[in-house]
Amino acid sequence: MRIIRSVRRLSQLAQRWRRQGQTIGFVPTMGAFHEGHRSLMRQARRDNDRVVVSLFVNPLQFGPHEDYARYPRPFRQDCAIAHAESVDVLWVPTRQGMYPRGHATRVEVLRLGEPLCGRWRPGHFRGVATIVAKLFGIVQPHRAYFGQKDAQQVIVIRRMVKDLHWPVTLRVLPTVRERDGLALSSRNASLTAQQRQQARQLFQALSLSRRLMRAGERRASRVRQQTLAFLRRTPGVRVEYVELVDPRTLRPLRRLQGSVLVAVAAWVGRTRLIDNLVVHV
Amino acid sequence: MRIIRSVRRLSQLAQRWRRQGQTIGFVPTMGAFHEGHRSLMRQARRDNDRVVVSLFVNPLQFGPHEDYARYPRPFRQDCAIAHAESVDVLWVPTRQGMYPRGHATRVEVLRLGEPLCGRWRPGHFRGVATIVAKLFGIVQPHRAYFGQKDAQQVIVIRRMVKDLHWPVTLRVLPTVRERDGLALSSRNASLTAQQRQQARQLFQALSLSRRLMRAGERRASRVRQQTLAFLRRTPGVRVEYVELVDPRTLRPLRRLQGSVLVAVAAWVGRTRLIDNLVVHV
Repeated sequence: MRIIRSVRRLSQLAQRWRRQGQTIGFVPTMGAFHEGHRSLMRQARRDNDRVVVSLFVNPLQFGPHEDYARYPRPFRQDCAIAHAESVDVLWVPTRQGMYPRGHATRVEVLRLGEPLCGRWRPGHFRGVATIVAKLFGIVQPHRAYFGQKDAQQVIVIRRMVKDLHWPVTLRVLPTVRERDGLALSSRNASLTAQQRQQARQLFQALSLSRRLMRAGERRASRVRQQTLAFLRRTPGVRVEYVELVDPRTLRPLRRLQGSVLVAVAAWVGRTRLIDNLVVHV
Repeated sequence: MRIIRSVRRLSQLAQRWRRQGQTIGFVPTMGAFHEGHRSLMRQARRDNDRVVVSLFVNPLQFGPHEDYARYPRPFRQDCAIAHAESVDVLWVPTRQGMYPRGHATRVEVLRLGEPLCGRWRPGHFRGVATIVAKLFGIVQPHRAYFGQKDAQQVIVIRRMVKDLHWPVTLRVLPTVRERDGLALSSRNASLTAQQRQQARQLFQALSLSRRLMRAGERRASRVRQQTLAFLRRTPGVRVEYVELVDPRTLRPLRRLQGSVLVAVAAWVGRTRLIDNLVVHV
């Protein structure tokens, strides 16, 4: 496995592969790899001749009071994991490489970046769309891999790719969970043992939503209120939102039918966690 | 020459050419071809195996009170010209094809889109950047051709291409002028005979700027004021701006040295015209 830091070198390598007719699978990440990342790397390995994993903690998608500085960066461990997953290139661009002096371009996806996390993290999805646009421009991948845990991110990127007509196929893999249901996240590493116990209530809350729907509840407001009430009873958990939305448009649903995206965001201590389920009713 | 209207068909054709190792030259236009467009087509023809000219009057770059509806659309004449210039494909996408229902992505170039025309046409360069991003995504050109007359547009697009790391080379060709100096523009067709005479004062004003600089004037404010005064004396011409800026950053200059972009925008009747010169002092 090669570790590349230069934007230019990665770009040249990718262009050479393209010219040779090799397919490129791309897994954009912020590092701190867990089993979720590994599932993306493995799928990319199965689908493509070449696998590039980028590791870049993107400052543009963090708000001024968010955890950019605290975000975990276990670089040596990440190298070992990428190597074990037979990644061809672990690409670790610098901040200066990605946002050189004079950088001025922003990509925004109207509407889809505004609800849910967008409401609580203004500018977040603009930062996500911009960095992914740049990463795709450099890597020119045939396929790119994302986790369903970041449901809104996937929807924003899918829209961008469609609108800008990029010849890249997005593959979205299921959220990988701990045995008690907690969605894997690089941020879980920040939880204390007690917080770890509290964090499992996010998935419990989503499961409650699903149970209510499966039991025949079709009023979104009822499901939402009961799920909120459940989370608010959990000590140590501060809910940001529980929403039931259309999984394509992210518009809030009133009547539950067809596919429903139930999404939750909550703070456990100083750690903000998100999770979601798609339920077919 | 083929005339294609479908986005998908153009995209498939361009991808096939790419796979065959053919180079693609791309001339994005809003139609109403004049000698300026023809010079771009000719250069594209010389440089590439394949030449695609797009013809799309992009609603996103027009303000609500601008001339989108009145913009000239002499389609049959445009076909004849493109054919005469040995263009391979004249691509005429529909509004629905370019902006289908649900379209939500916007590309913005901070700072560079704000001064000069950006101040008078809010949102204009966001519209330009967005449509060019889409056109480039569909055509995937090796080279794209623009005229120096639209100096700010070129600077905005150059920045976007650099920031998003697209593998496309921009070629900027000199402004083509009438014998009396008037820059060719599709909008010139709207001028009456009298307005046509008045319109030549834009180039005269730029020439005055250049003369003053060549005579040793280094104070931008002096050059600007004299040029403005000249234009304000011209009956039928309503000046929007005269600016002397750095041709890379578009920042206003105080002291004139090195390269200077002198740019002017003015109304002649209901027609808004722009022009510019780059002067090396």
